[in-house]
Amino acid sequence: MKTLEGGDLEAELRRRADLISKAIDELLPVSRPEGLYDAARHLLGAGGKRLRPSLLLIAGESVGCDAARLVPAAVAIELVHNFTLIHDDIMDNASLRRGKPAVHVIWGTSGAILAGDTLYSKAFEMLSMVDAPPERVLAAMDMLARTCTSICEGQWQDLEFERAESVTEKEYLEMIEKKTGVLYGASAWIGATLGGAPPEVAGGLEEFGRLTGMGFQIHDDILDLTVPEDVLGKRLGGDILEGKKTMIIIDALSKGVKLEIFGKGQASQEQLREAISALRRCGSIDYARRRAEEFVGRGKRALDVLDDSPAKKLLLELADYMIRRGY
Amino acid sequence: MKTLEGGDLEAELRRRADLISKAIDELLPVSRPEGLYDAARHLLGAGGKRLRPSLLLIAGESVGCDAARLVPAAVAIELVHNFTLIHDDIMDNASLRRGKPAVHVIWGTSGAILAGDTLYSKAFEMLSMVDAPPERVLAAMDMLARTCTSICEGQWQDLEFERAESVTEKEYLEMIEKKTGVLYGASAWIGATLGGAPPEVAGGLEEFGRLTGMGFQIHDDILDLTVPEDVLGKRLGGDILEGKKTMIIIDALSKGVKLEIFGKGQASQEQLREAISALRRCGSIDYARRRAEEFVGRGKRALDVLDDSPAKKLLLELADYMIRRGY
Repeated sequence: MKTLEGGDLEAELRRRADLISKAIDELLPVSRPEGLYDAARHLLGAGGKRLRPSLLLIAGESVGCDAARLVPAAVAIELVHNFTLIHDDIMDNASLRRGKPAVHVIWGTSGAILAGDTLYSKAFEMLSMVDAPPERVLAAMDMLARTCTSICEGQWQDLEFERAESVTEKEYLEMIEKKTGVLYGASAWIGATLGGAPPEVAGGLEEFGRLTGMGFQIHDDILDLTVPEDVLGKRLGGDILEGKKTMIIIDALSKGVKLEIFGKGQASQEQLREAISALRRCGSIDYARRRAEEFVGRGKRALDVLDDSPAKKLLLELADYMIRRGY
Repeated sequence: MKTLEGGDLEAELRRRADLISKAIDELLPVSRPEGLYDAARHLLGAGGKRLRPSLLLIAGESVGCDAARLVPAAVAIELVHNFTLIHDDIMDNASLRRGKPAVHVIWGTSGAILAGDTLYSKAFEMLSMVDAPPERVLAAMDMLARTCTSICEGQWQDLEFERAESVTEKEYLEMIEKKTGVLYGASAWIGATLGGAPPEVAGGLEEFGRLTGMGFQIHDDILDLTVPEDVLGKRLGGDILEGKKTMIIIDALSKGVKLEIFGKGQASQEQLREAISALRRCGSIDYARRRAEEFVGRGKRALDVLDDSPAKKLLLELADYMIRRGY
């Protein structure tokens, strides 16, 4: 785990993703009541790229820690991420996730609420297991708790935006910082802190994670408009139909673009294609792409706190990957 | 806070409840986004007896700790309790709680999910604040996490019971142990552990909390059938209409009692009165009362690990109160 030379980024990510998937199977076995654990594990078993927990591991490596020790913390981050997916899908009434039916579609709203709640507490259980000095583990638990609070605040704002007359870009950025950025930030901070990094180094890694995470989210909004369902695992243009005020939409509205199907819940393929094409023509997709690149650039500069190492190189490559990935 | 002589139990509980309510106001202020914090605080502001956090404080006192230091931990327990109320009310489709509309009635399902999630993470934030050696705080965080997992398992079983053909008393007891007992157990264990108690003493207090908590739940099921809505703050006989398989119902069914309105969702006042009267006549309410007393008696014996003190006396009185209270 300590040497990183030779492999390309995707191979390095795949290696860590496999390690995390294996640890999930071990640390979160199906136990009684079986239905609850089936529901809790439904999306966990559906792959996903494990970017957040991989970031945690690489952040630990970048400060000289053996990443194998951090695996339960990495699992904790993945459980928190999955908990938010399950609860968000209820709130967004989304039926598809990672190409599978959403948890609430199979187990109902009550089952999905409980599956999410279970992953939430399991995350804290996992994190408390990490073999590190208690004051570091405690700091990590506190960071995870504050991060979960931020995610709730961000999701609340996201829901408010759907009802709002208009949303500014500043408000959108605050929302995605909380909803997406902080969990990437916490992943990097927790890996560094458990790995023994001093506060200023952990702070730099947090900033790296948070800013690249915001780039990731803006890129995600772009993917929603550009990647077909069979690749992305969710409906093309779903954000338009749901009335999500993404950076792209905010920019387009400010340019006077009219989107008849915005927030209408459904539309024909032809209408969807036309709406997406309008967003492209007015330059809003390109604009969002530039902003995503800008956030990732700022995030990479925050890594100046680190000495050069294979792990640092990997972090810089990961940052670029977050806005280059095709799904 | 250290001397307990003189006051009667209810005055002692009120004093601690006031302390906890004041701390909630300080530690969980309404901040942005306001709607989220209004929703999260809705039931917290509606009183409640604060029995769980008071138990935590008294458990700490019983091992010689100044309870004032434990207040953030007590608040954490109350937040977890309120998080479960908010999510349970969504699942049970309950419209009334503590005499006020349930959170989901005012803020919708999405708002209530997020309000509960926020209290969940805030609880861990509060607990991490406690001024105690980090290994003790970490042990408390781990206990809280495992307790939340148990509560989810218990609630899942409770929902399964509604669909189940029949439920045994053993299954019912396992369910209430998880759904209600463990949080009382954790309250006592966390107060003792943060207060510096050795594991066997903390273990005795956990058992005390868990068993009296089970008595509390059985008593709660009795109150549902015997206390009118204007006193209890929820609908008389609601459990019958919802088809909850409580100890009383399980006993009555085993005696061949027929309850036509069981699980029917609604009934006339006359039908409800008749059903409750049938449960009384067949002896099932008295049976449940005896079992509640038995659990409380076993719980009290677990306190043999403690030397005599005013705090121990208070714990013994609290145990009796848990199955004597009128609402």
